[in-house]
Amino acid sequence: MRIGRSACVSLLGRSERGVLSTVHPRRGVDAVPACFVLEGALVAVPVDTVKDKGTPDLQRVANVEADPRASLLCDHWDATDWSQLWWVRATLVRIDADAGRRASLEDLLRAKYPQYGIDAHPFASLLVFRITELTGWSAVVH
Amino acid sequence: MRIGRSACVSLLGRSERGVLSTVHPRRGVDAVPACFVLEGALVAVPVDTVKDKGTPDLQRVANVEADPRASLLCDHWDATDWSQLWWVRATLVRIDADAGRRASLEDLLRAKYPQYGIDAHPFASLLVFRITELTGWSAVVH
Repeated sequence: MRIGRSACVSLLGRSERGVLSTVHPRRGVDAVPACFVLEGALVAVPVDTVKDKGTPDLQRVANVEADPRASLLCDHWDATDWSQLWWVRATLVRIDADAGRRASLEDLLRAKYPQYGIDAHPFASLLVFRITELTGWSAVVH
Repeated sequence: MRIGRSACVSLLGRSERGVLSTVHPRRGVDAVPACFVLEGALVAVPVDTVKDKGTPDLQRVANVEADPRASLLCDHWDATDWSQLWWVRATLVRIDADAGRRASLEDLLRAKYPQYGIDAHPFASLLVFRITELTGWSAVVH
C-alpha cells in the first residue's frame, strides 16, 4: 500500500544508501548505488574519492549536466518475509547550491559515513538535488 | 575497479532482487525494487499479484510500453566495510517473448522465489528484456 509523505521522509532519512537513477541519452536510464544525505527538501550525493572509481569524471555527473532529472530509490529487502518489504522513491531535479549549503551537506555526509571522516578532502564533487515528488510503498502500514 | 563480463553475469545471477529503472516521459526516470530471473541474455521481471499493489496496471509497465529502454541494478552494500562493495548494471531493452519462453521464465521465477509457488497464478504479467550492456564495479577484484 502507499506510504504517506512523513513516513517516506522518515524511511529515506534512515536509509544507509540509495540507488541514483539518471537519464542517459542513448541507454535511456543509468543507475548506481549511492551514498547520500537528506536535508529538508534537498538530497546530496557525493562523488567521493574514497571508493576507487578510476576517475571522478563519472557518467552520472555527465548525465545530470545534460538532463537534471534523477531519482533516488531506497528500499528494504527480505527474502523470506515479504511482509517486511518497503520502498521509497524521491524524484529529483538537480540544482545549483551555494558554498554554504554545500559545506553543510558535506558535514552531514561526514557525520553519516565515518569513512569520509578519515580523508581531509573525500569529495571530488557534490550533486545537489531538490525533491519534487515522494512516492512510497510498503507491504504493511508505516 | 571494473568487473569483467563473466563476473557480472555470475553476480547478477546470484542476486536476490534488483532495482528496475525505466524511462518516465515527465519525471525522466522511475525506479522500483524488482524480483527477476536471468536466463542467458534475457532478464524477466514479473508484475506479481503476491505483493499488494492495489492495481496491476503499474507505471513501470506503461513506461516500458512507451519506451522499451530500462536497466536492472544489483548491488551489495556493507555499511562498515566498503572493501566488500560491488554493483552490476544490466542495460535492457524490452522484447516480445513467445508463450514457450514466457512459461520457461515463469518456471524460473517460481523456482527462485518460493512465495510464487503458493499461488496458482502469481503473475499478472511478465516483462521480458534483452541485455544490451553489462557494467560492473567492485572495490576489490572479482
